[in-house]
Amino acid sequence: MKAGILGTGAVGRAIAGKLTELGHDVVIGTRNVARTKAHVEPDYMGNPPFSVWHKTHDKVRLATFAEAAALSELLVNATAGMASLDVLQAAGEKNLAGKILIDIANPLDFSKGMPPSLLVCNTDSLGEQIQRAFPTARVVKTLNTMTNMIMANPNLVAKGDHDVFVSGNDPDAKARVTELLKTFGWKHVIDLGDITTARGVEMVLPMWVRMMGALQTPMFNFKVAR
Amino acid sequence: MKAGILGTGAVGRAIAGKLTELGHDVVIGTRNVARTKAHVEPDYMGNPPFSVWHKTHDKVRLATFAEAAALSELLVNATAGMASLDVLQAAGEKNLAGKILIDIANPLDFSKGMPPSLLVCNTDSLGEQIQRAFPTARVVKTLNTMTNMIMANPNLVAKGDHDVFVSGNDPDAKARVTELLKTFGWKHVIDLGDITTARGVEMVLPMWVRMMGALQTPMFNFKVAR
Repeated sequence: MKAGILGTGAVGRAIAGKLTELGHDVVIGTRNVARTKAHVEPDYMGNPPFSVWHKTHDKVRLATFAEAAALSELLVNATAGMASLDVLQAAGEKNLAGKILIDIANPLDFSKGMPPSLLVCNTDSLGEQIQRAFPTARVVKTLNTMTNMIMANPNLVAKGDHDVFVSGNDPDAKARVTELLKTFGWKHVIDLGDITTARGVEMVLPMWVRMMGALQTPMFNFKVAR
Repeated sequence: MKAGILGTGAVGRAIAGKLTELGHDVVIGTRNVARTKAHVEPDYMGNPPFSVWHKTHDKVRLATFAEAAALSELLVNATAGMASLDVLQAAGEKNLAGKILIDIANPLDFSKGMPPSLLVCNTDSLGEQIQRAFPTARVVKTLNTMTNMIMANPNLVAKGDHDVFVSGNDPDAKARVTELLKTFGWKHVIDLGDITTARGVEMVLPMWVRMMGALQTPMFNFKVAR
């Protein structure tokens, strides 16, 4: 499968790395290819620059957002939530049309200090905003409720006995994303319903952030105990 | 221990029943004692009227909000979130002073239809509003992330292997509530931090509501898998 990842940060790299490992053909999209290649400093989270990661993941192509989207059958929004709508505009509506768009982004607002609040919540969500802005894309919100290491390797905590959720309007798209998640190692994929259920999973983030504070590690995930 | 429960609904009854079973002296507060006793119809959720429940729980006293608060060492806010601040005003600031106030309420807004949204979230929470309105009360937010049956009997799902959270500014109050929760059967009580962490647990509710829709049962609870 040809997969296009929008975003060169830790989430984009985790998903790109996993998809490559699974034999898929992966291109990562960025705003400015030359500038992304030229970065030599770690980011504010201490992640090494993209070029360092790219050396050990040289099967992954780097392209513009629009090129990455045009080349791919399946797209992943792995950008910061505050930038997502802009990035998807840059990717181009025609390049998203009819394609599955996995939305992992969280609408975190760091402008008011830590811990972050949400830019949109309660009666709307980023997932819904994206689906409204790109009505022909088949948006599936998933994987946004955990740290990037666990997204790609659920067995890193509790032997994989925890949950990931899918939200979206297109049952076939959710079924295909569910199958893909199973190839990542996910045992439990819960279909929450239509894209409005993205409000639920995005509003878990404030809890996630505080849980990370309490546990002093991001290596946990939510499980629905029954 | 003398415990006062504010609210005669399903949550108040579950907590009152459990505390009585554990040998505590329980009084339930309501706005109008005569009217609460006179109700003969089930509520909109299908719960029997208070008087029916009271027949099998006759050790529990029914009193006004102010009487229940004045008589008790420990208070539990088990009211609907939209009514909580009014009810606590009716209970009386002097009757709350210095006491532990367990806040289970969720600020659910049903006025815009189902599923409910939140009346306050993101940069504030009901728990914080209550602590600000009653600065001498020792507010501990807890138990709001699950259905009332599980609050009082955590072993009803997954053999009790799931989590409850405490949020509050007073470490001693949180420690005492944690001990109380253990007598309910809770094995895992996670201290999230100060009362601002109530934003996290209250914002889980939209997820909880959608999960109930997906599973078609309220008999589940969140666990932090590590």
